[in-house]
Amino acid sequence: MEWAPDKEEDKMKFLSQTFMIRTEKGPQFIDITERVEEVTRQSGVSNGFAVIFSKHTTAAIRINENEPALLGDMERMLEQIAPSCAEYKHNEFAHAFSDNGERPNGHSHCQHLLLGASEAVPIVDGKLIVGQWQRVFLVELDRARDREVVVQLVGE
Amino acid sequence: MEWAPDKEEDKMKFLSQTFMIRTEKGPQFIDITERVEEVTRQSGVSNGFAVIFSKHTTAAIRINENEPALLGDMERMLEQIAPSCAEYKHNEFAHAFSDNGERPNGHSHCQHLLLGASEAVPIVDGKLIVGQWQRVFLVELDRARDREVVVQLVGE
Amino acid sequence: MEWAPDKEEDKMKFLSQTFMIRTEKGPQFIDITERVEEVTRQSGVSNGFAVIFSKHTTAAIRINENEPALLGDMERMLEQIAPSCAEYKHNEFAHAFSDNGERPNGHSHCQHLLLGASEAVPIVDGKLIVGQWQRVFLVELDRARDREVVVQLVGE
Repeated sequence: MEWAPDKEEDKMKFLSQTFMIRTEKGPQFIDITERVEEVTRQSGVSNGFAVIFSKHTTAAIRINENEPALLGDMERMLEQIAPSCAEYKHNEFAHAFSDNGERPNGHSHCQHLLLGASEAVPIVDGKLIVGQWQRVFLVELDRARDREVVVQLVGE
Repeated sequence: MEWAPDKEEDKMKFLSQTFMIRTEKGPQFIDITERVEEVTRQSGVSNGFAVIFSKHTTAAIRINENEPALLGDMERMLEQIAPSCAEYKHNEFAHAFSDNGERPNGHSHCQHLLLGASEAVPIVDGKLIVGQWQRVFLVELDRARDREVVVQLVGE
Repeated sequence: MEWAPDKEEDKMKFLSQTFMIRTEKGPQFIDITERVEEVTRQSGVSNGFAVIFSKHTTAAIRINENEPALLGDMERMLEQIAPSCAEYKHNEFAHAFSDNGERPNGHSHCQHLLLGASEAVPIVDGKLIVGQWQRVFLVELDRARDREVVVQLVGE
């Protein structure tokens, strides 16, 4: 059992950075690990954690392995759970307001409910503590869209 | 790329508030965004984040859009994934102890496993950073019950 | 409405502890609540929260009830959603590299996508604020393996 150094005298930092991502299609898994690592490096936070947060209800944040065949498997599973071609009451609503450019996306919201909007990742000695195969993804569940991801860091 | 102000000299705050909600049925999506926003306003935290936490194993915290037809779609998806009428070994257990008023709720626990107990939302300039369509929900997966939600704020 | 004591003069703590767990099979729900509580006690953090984080892409962190029949129900649900015997493109990839000892585990990754890598739990008055039935689990979704769990505490 080993504690990370407890530098109580150090100053606290709260840092927030938002970046935009243009997705290309849905579903799409976009590996944002390097951007989160870069934000962490720039922040100077050595102990604490990062909350990675999607500002959307049809694009999720998840951690998994970046292996292309696997990403296809996960896309197929999401399609099986909430098929894009199934009937959603939300799509009738969206259709009625289709002049705002919204495509029927009931399946995207349903899939998002299962994935979630955020993940928290520990930071120790200035580095994101992710496992060997862990990568942070923005998961586009709708169509090609502009997306905003917030990385919020807290630490010392 | 833009950092939120880094006011290292400011004082840290850790604030916790618990509120009770009487749900009316299961499943039910209860929009608690305004209560979380009110807690955030009262706290005086200007940079940091809020963890919204359900103290239950059959009521979840999730972020999605508050569009009534969509909430029905999501309820139907949850029912398809873990139907309330399917067989659960947990229900035999619950039945044996039914004098504590527990209704068979194996499906509620299974659905909860997929949704989760907490979400973390960034706070910048004193405001919850939620996207245009994002609302925070307590998701009742069991029956009408008294529920406790903890909002834990950390920031400066 | 009641605020937890706001002791702004107290010193901030950031503490991180990693522990290893040897799982015995997959799927398996391993109750790690007592270990998280012990880390919390030792830390001296009285107000803040704990992030419990799995460093793996086929082992998740979730909160639910520790009732053996229920754990079996949840294992069956996961198997229905992403069956271990279904076809996954990832398994062809894994097979090609099978000299690293990896067993086909496409289903494990798919199930992990739905559960997630972390949960955040509030700490008030030195105690984890978990509800009566809430227990923290490491959920093994692959086979018997060595797993690392990080408990990251922030608070005063």
